[in-house]
Amino acid sequence: MTLLEWQNKILIIDMGFRFPEEDMPGIDFIIPNIAYLKGREKDVVGLLITHGHYDHIGAIPYLIGKIDPKLPIYASALAKGIITKRQDDFSQQGKLNVETVKNGSRVELGPFKIEFFRQNHNIPDNLGLVINTPVGNIVHTSDFKFDETPVNDLPTDFSKLKEIASRRVLLLMADSTGAENEGHSLSEQTISANLEEIFQKSKGRVIAATFSSLINRVQQLITISEKHGRRVFIEGFSMRTNVEISRNLGYIKFKKGTLVQSKDIAKYPDEKITVICTGAQGEGQASLMRIANREHQFIRLKKGDAVIFSSSVIPGNEKTVQVLKDEILRQKTTVYHYKMMDIHAGGHAQIEELKQMISIMKPDFFMPIHGQYSMMAAHGEIAESVGMNEKNVVVVENGQVVALTRKTIEIEKEVIPSYYVMVDGLGIGDVGEIVLRDRQTLAKDGMFVIIAVIDRQTGKIKGSPDIISRGFVYLRESQELLDQTRKKVIGIVSQATGSEGIVNWAYIKDEIRNKVGQYLYTKTQRRPMILPVVIEV
Amino acid sequence: MTLLEWQNKILIIDMGFRFPEEDMPGIDFIIPNIAYLKGREKDVVGLLITHGHYDHIGAIPYLIGKIDPKLPIYASALAKGIITKRQDDFSQQGKLNVETVKNGSRVELGPFKIEFFRQNHNIPDNLGLVINTPVGNIVHTSDFKFDETPVNDLPTDFSKLKEIASRRVLLLMADSTGAENEGHSLSEQTISANLEEIFQKSKGRVIAATFSSLINRVQQLITISEKHGRRVFIEGFSMRTNVEISRNLGYIKFKKGTLVQSKDIAKYPDEKITVICTGAQGEGQASLMRIANREHQFIRLKKGDAVIFSSSVIPGNEKTVQVLKDEILRQKTTVYHYKMMDIHAGGHAQIEELKQMISIMKPDFFMPIHGQYSMMAAHGEIAESVGMNEKNVVVVENGQVVALTRKTIEIEKEVIPSYYVMVDGLGIGDVGEIVLRDRQTLAKDGMFVIIAVIDRQTGKIKGSPDIISRGFVYLRESQELLDQTRKKVIGIVSQATGSEGIVNWAYIKDEIRNKVGQYLYTKTQRRPMILPVVIEV
Repeated sequence: MTLLEWQNKILIIDMGFRFPEEDMPGIDFIIPNIAYLKGREKDVVGLLITHGHYDHIGAIPYLIGKIDPKLPIYASALAKGIITKRQDDFSQQGKLNVETVKNGSRVELGPFKIEFFRQNHNIPDNLGLVINTPVGNIVHTSDFKFDETPVNDLPTDFSKLKEIASRRVLLLMADSTGAENEGHSLSEQTISANLEEIFQKSKGRVIAATFSSLINRVQQLITISEKHGRRVFIEGFSMRTNVEISRNLGYIKFKKGTLVQSKDIAKYPDEKITVICTGAQGEGQASLMRIANREHQFIRLKKGDAVIFSSSVIPGNEKTVQVLKDEILRQKTTVYHYKMMDIHAGGHAQIEELKQMISIMKPDFFMPIHGQYSMMAAHGEIAESVGMNEKNVVVVENGQVVALTRKTIEIEKEVIPSYYVMVDGLGIGDVGEIVLRDRQTLAKDGMFVIIAVIDRQTGKIKGSPDIISRGFVYLRESQELLDQTRKKVIGIVSQATGSEGIVNWAYIKDEIRNKVGQYLYTKTQRRPMILPVVIEV
Repeated sequence: MTLLEWQNKILIIDMGFRFPEEDMPGIDFIIPNIAYLKGREKDVVGLLITHGHYDHIGAIPYLIGKIDPKLPIYASALAKGIITKRQDDFSQQGKLNVETVKNGSRVELGPFKIEFFRQNHNIPDNLGLVINTPVGNIVHTSDFKFDETPVNDLPTDFSKLKEIASRRVLLLMADSTGAENEGHSLSEQTISANLEEIFQKSKGRVIAATFSSLINRVQQLITISEKHGRRVFIEGFSMRTNVEISRNLGYIKFKKGTLVQSKDIAKYPDEKITVICTGAQGEGQASLMRIANREHQFIRLKKGDAVIFSSSVIPGNEKTVQVLKDEILRQKTTVYHYKMMDIHAGGHAQIEELKQMISIMKPDFFMPIHGQYSMMAAHGEIAESVGMNEKNVVVVENGQVVALTRKTIEIEKEVIPSYYVMVDGLGIGDVGEIVLRDRQTLAKDGMFVIIAVIDRQTGKIKGSPDIISRGFVYLRESQELLDQTRKKVIGIVSQATGSEGIVNWAYIKDEIRNKVGQYLYTKTQRRPMILPVVIEV
């Protein structure tokens, strides 16, 4: 999410989410921090959406209501379709106010005059932005790549890019995701050719897994299947939803009869079957995982099947994908993945394309956007390598503020709030550092609750302290450890309550926590979370 | 770990550990399952160690005592040094019985006659095995690669390999780790040249991170540093330990005065400093992480520093390494990593080398070893591609048993126990599926303990139920939720104990667990682990 501000009018670009890090168990995703907009909701003039991927639209249902449920949103037809469909999951919210825009559309919002232009990516209907502001033109590339032979899309329109450049670009904000990759991204035509080769070789079923958001790849697989007389089975909820939306809007096309329901798969011979499914990242509940684990209702793997992983592996998923691939190979199928041949192209411009974009736009100032810090830093260096002055390039992170004038660009000293806002179930931002740290501790060595009921009259423990422990040791085989712990607790309490005077329960709890903690660590070298409960009766 | 068995005599090859998967929080590592050896300890004739990496020696302290604390272990000088040093951490155990072997050593153990031969890898003193058995010769490659221009080691001795082959190889067991990588592994000479280029360019300090077990890489970095007049600072406990062991045994050499203590780093100009440290995988407590996070006692990053990641990224660590790299780049240093230039070579033969090994050995039978299933499967296909018959190639996994005769090889139907044995602190194998599942649940949504004290006389709850929750919601901001839950619990108890008759405490607990669970899910869409405690007074 990016904010542009001019004299108290604020324009928002994109509203996506990102997935949590490994040390954030239970978190569904992380959404933009909009604390800066608090009290300024009515200053927001609109939300521009570049394309329909979740890292650009995913936070809308969580944030739009906090800004203005009726805020005008501008999105392409496909992006609008995906946004609207998703809104069904948030039925308590009203209808969104989405206006459809397309290549060439112009919109005026407060001091900002926006023109949308077509950019290639791996989803159709992706739009770059030319934003005319009182200080000059800002060009926002959206996620993009150059492709002169795309699939399911028009080739990059370089003359349009040059026309935009001719109006003079004050600031270029460009996608950095591919800035660490040499050369030029692969054309989708190359991918098609390689996929076709696999189809030609395969005598059995072809099972192709990819992202459900990779609409153009799905179209490729359908087209090739039709060419080879194969029926297509779409597996996975999100895949089916996206195919349906895209089909209704005309972004995915297939012949009558091509799509078949999966319950009918047994009716067709293997060599006439293509399965397009989710799960190329090894996601636990996705179709490919269920197929591999023999949990799918209709599909079991067998010798002769060809399984295609038509996607790269998102960092962090490598191990899971390896486990999935192993499981598939054990079933004697043939596996094709992107390291073996070019059956996946990323959607992002690589170094040579990024140079070209900067060279075309010739901006006064340059700001890398999208991707990890290392990618933006690399993109900054790319800008310098094509002649930009270091002082005209700003590499910034979430929360930083850039002041732009006709002649200058500067990173401000003050930052705006950008701490993580985490979504977990229905909770938005209620899981903070404390809850997360507790989850990490619980995950590592489990927990250990000690319940001591103390007789108010005698100051003695009644009966034996109760112990509830989970995730620490296997209790049935640890009776000795538990017995010793109980004795320790009885000792601690009787020592603390033995003498006359007022009993300090907080002190007793601390003593139990520390001494039992120490004892358990000595015995096991584990540190479960220890929770003493003292009940006075 | 591999077992060879002939008429009740068992020979063990290697005894390593592996690191846990992502869904095994708190687990330190996984060690081989030796249930098969139970009751047969005295049949074991010895343990052969191929080299000193932890995935080949790491489980010795955990398992040797269960087999025979005095079992003869055969290892090269360096491997012995590392094994013996590690044993210091297990002071309650006696001295190990390790005999030093080297290239050309011969040992006879029961029916097995073993000859050790030199193999290149990324640690010196790596030994392949020729095992003469009553049915024929088995060749075990150890981890290996072919390198005609290695660093700190002799070039591959192809004539020796041919001599071994000339004795006829019944079974070849070969390292599969590189079986999915095209071509030939890089020679360490190439790596040296590229590292040297970085040293030449760098005007400031060079900070090179790698695995502490990559002894040869450490030697390379020392040699280049000496050439450029740089002092060397070794950072990280395991790095220092391994350098010390290797130096004492003559496997790492440096001039007098090259090595300097880190507290003296301020005494030298930046261009005369090389830091060699641990942490290239983003390990939380390793030196590079502490340097990047400004937690290192003596070293802070600054502009002009060059940080080299001289290692590949182990699958599963990509995200952590990205975060570390970003943090380093923010401090305006230059970062070099293996995707930018060849500054790391794996220690494993790639497809062309693997073909060559099989072609030299011309074994009757072939068994891929080491690596993931997909790598062993690929290695099996490599064997077939150089002419081996499919039926003479066996791809097996942990727990499978292969019957080998002079004329046949066959995978037996029966398997031996191979379930994971997990080490967590002092516990070996005591963390099983139940404990692990609890940890996963606790990590995801935390826990929720409800303590109800019930008056035996009235069947009513005394006071208000206590609630202890961690990792679920931020309690201070959830008073309403907690109050409602308490009311629910009071209602459940009074309903269950209201009528006459015997009170079923188990039923009450179940009711609390289910109804409170449901209630919390409705309100939060989270499923904490609910633990009801009912105390009767």
